[in-house]
Amino acid sequence: MEEKDFEELEQLLEEKKFSELHKRFLDMNPVDIAEFLGQIDTVNLLSAFRLLPKDISADVFSYLDTEQAEHIVRSITDKELCRLVDDMFIDDTVDFLEEVPANVVNRVLRAADPETRKTINRYLNYAEDTAGSIMTNEMVQLHTKYTAKQAIENIRKTATDKETIYTCYCVDESRRLVGTVELKDLLLCDEDTKVGDIMDDKDQLITVQTSDDQEMVAELARKYDLLSVPVTDAEGRLVGIITIDDIVDIIEQENTEDFEKMAAMRPADETYLKTGVFKMAKNRILWLAILMISATFTGQLMSSKEALLSNWVFLTTAIPMLMDTSGNAGNQVSTLMIRGLALGEIKIKDYFVVLFKEFRVAVICALMLVVLNFGRMWIMNAESGDLTQYLIVSAALFIAILIANAIGCSLPILMKLIHLDPALMAGPMMTTILDVTTLAVYFGIAQKILIK
Amino acid sequence: MEEKDFEELEQLLEEKKFSELHKRFLDMNPVDIAEFLGQIDTVNLLSAFRLLPKDISADVFSYLDTEQAEHIVRSITDKELCRLVDDMFIDDTVDFLEEVPANVVNRVLRAADPETRKTINRYLNYAEDTAGSIMTNEMVQLHTKYTAKQAIENIRKTATDKETIYTCYCVDESRRLVGTVELKDLLLCDEDTKVGDIMDDKDQLITVQTSDDQEMVAELARKYDLLSVPVTDAEGRLVGIITIDDIVDIIEQENTEDFEKMAAMRPADETYLKTGVFKMAKNRILWLAILMISATFTGQLMSSKEALLSNWVFLTTAIPMLMDTSGNAGNQVSTLMIRGLALGEIKIKDYFVVLFKEFRVAVICALMLVVLNFGRMWIMNAESGDLTQYLIVSAALFIAILIANAIGCSLPILMKLIHLDPALMAGPMMTTILDVTTLAVYFGIAQKILIK
Repeated sequence: MEEKDFEELEQLLEEKKFSELHKRFLDMNPVDIAEFLGQIDTVNLLSAFRLLPKDISADVFSYLDTEQAEHIVRSITDKELCRLVDDMFIDDTVDFLEEVPANVVNRVLRAADPETRKTINRYLNYAEDTAGSIMTNEMVQLHTKYTAKQAIENIRKTATDKETIYTCYCVDESRRLVGTVELKDLLLCDEDTKVGDIMDDKDQLITVQTSDDQEMVAELARKYDLLSVPVTDAEGRLVGIITIDDIVDIIEQENTEDFEKMAAMRPADETYLKTGVFKMAKNRILWLAILMISATFTGQLMSSKEALLSNWVFLTTAIPMLMDTSGNAGNQVSTLMIRGLALGEIKIKDYFVVLFKEFRVAVICALMLVVLNFGRMWIMNAESGDLTQYLIVSAALFIAILIANAIGCSLPILMKLIHLDPALMAGPMMTTILDVTTLAVYFGIAQKILIK
Repeated sequence: MEEKDFEELEQLLEEKKFSELHKRFLDMNPVDIAEFLGQIDTVNLLSAFRLLPKDISADVFSYLDTEQAEHIVRSITDKELCRLVDDMFIDDTVDFLEEVPANVVNRVLRAADPETRKTINRYLNYAEDTAGSIMTNEMVQLHTKYTAKQAIENIRKTATDKETIYTCYCVDESRRLVGTVELKDLLLCDEDTKVGDIMDDKDQLITVQTSDDQEMVAELARKYDLLSVPVTDAEGRLVGIITIDDIVDIIEQENTEDFEKMAAMRPADETYLKTGVFKMAKNRILWLAILMISATFTGQLMSSKEALLSNWVFLTTAIPMLMDTSGNAGNQVSTLMIRGLALGEIKIKDYFVVLFKEFRVAVICALMLVVLNFGRMWIMNAESGDLTQYLIVSAALFIAILIANAIGCSLPILMKLIHLDPALMAGPMMTTILDVTTLAVYFGIAQKILIK
């Protein structure tokens, strides 16, 4: 996407043409306004924020970066803060409070009415990345005995404070969730129809509990095409919902974490530009160190074959090619496994199907690479060529790829089996493991043939 | 997620207890029914499909695997097919038709009514992965002059055939899109209010064109929290919408493609288990071959330093550690870049900020690794140790990591700058490039110091 050009707005702000700027805001999307506010100095931030149309200022606020939001909370009056907290959705407030220092949290909590304060406090206590920590309690709750007409009346009356009205939740007297009904169905049915008669009932209900991982929420929403997922407590009482806009964010967040893990990093909490240098180094150093130490074994293995390598110099030339190629092949397979497992397209029980498939793919790829590499060796060493050494390299290449594909599909599935994250068995880790196996195979073959 | 247990249903099917099975289907979610149908033999598939409650059979059909859906289309009567095509949403039909042989496409087109047939044919002509190829035309269109009451009446009458009624689209006489209105706002406002007065109008409108890439659609929906994105033709006329359930699928699909590209593969069209062995080998072999050939340069470089390495054997031991560590460091950075660029969190203009940040992170990581590695060398070679060689390895390690981080952040941004996919500059490619630079640095330092 192109970046928006906010030059004109900045000009208006600088020239203090506030009423003109206010007029512009009226026609803008809250997301774009937040993006504009993200680009201006903190000096002007507050005056620009105060120019926002009242009905969208909470919305804009929830799209701001944490630092800017924090700056605004610290600068506005108590009265303004009360209004802001009142207008914001609970999940956005909780999201914000999770990121800021305690004194800001306290200021916001003091500004909230007692009911909201209790709710926010409860939500802040849920563990990070659980359904409880990302839900909101602003959903439509309907009694099963309502008629469609009563239900729509009820929705009309309460809708302004709800995060979504498109899926409504039916509860019994003890607040247990008994079904869901789409607003669409309420509009389409006869107005005397009872909600209980048209709702999707218990058997079809898709719910999560407060302690469930957010990844599970995203998976259910994706699988069942839901616009919101209801959250219940251990007794089955409805305590909140998670809406599709947050679910989309979770999906991207979980994907980012997988990318980071697969590149041997600890996942960062913040976006790249906002993560500090020390934090960033901390996220990377542990794996770099572990992998560095592991790689010294490969070095030991190489130097222990010093006699072999110095007698047959040509063998040394092929080492990077063999290590890289097996590493790349293993990395291809493990990436497909990790992704397939994450999306539920591959299950543990598919292991032998996968292994057999990878065996066949490996044979095809290995044959083609061996032929290509043989030709290359032949051409590049036309004068000094030694067929025996070519054959050693070819055999090692073939076997190394077979092993790479076998390990590449086995380790991620093994990780899943023992309830660890398959994403850890990606690129760098895989490469280090395969370096050793490849060299072992290579030296083994070379010794068998050359040292009778 | 746990897999569902369908044993009982299978039992019912085998014992031909069809009315009992039909009863079970009534209480099940279409997604789960499709999953169940996915597990049974094609022999029983048709009879099970015919037991589906009429109002959800099209829905279940759209969740089936292509092969099973194809089998059903080939087996059912013309009359059944007409009904099915009539009940399905256009985007689901088009999705299905894009995957099946021409004779199946023709059979489905013959079963469609002339209007639908024309629409399907038009949609099939849009290029793959464009907005046009994934949209549906089943949206609510309202005139701006309608009152809220008239609008809701209109929605009630037509809603059964619409894929979503929650965002309605306002068009002028020449079908140009002039605004959108949320059903929520229609319900909340006074019933005599004109649609034109409460709609989000032109300035705030977020639209895509039929030829825009689906990735852009997903990015807009994510950024602006949209439940559906309108698609217009070159003249600004509304031709379709793309709903959030499809957008979630696009997001996962685009992520999968990035994972595959970053592991040096051509993206696959199908899920792992459904991709054939030859197709799979084809997706992998090209990059494996390119990277294998590139790696031979590293080998050449090593063997050209044969004299150096055989005089100072200890230097050989450190080669895998140096190559792996710089590769891992570069891979960490490039992964963060690729992801940040994909999510729009990093822009090309941030390059120098990023480069300076990576320089500082590299210095911190490199210092720690150098100390750790120096200690390891000291301990492991207590008797035979040679301080000069330790210093050579340490200096090379330090410089190699600095270079790795610089290249790791520069290449993805360079790719973006020349409009290529940054994901190509990930792990394997990065490793191969860094192998050469690392060895060059290493041998350069060693020669300077050892060979006076």
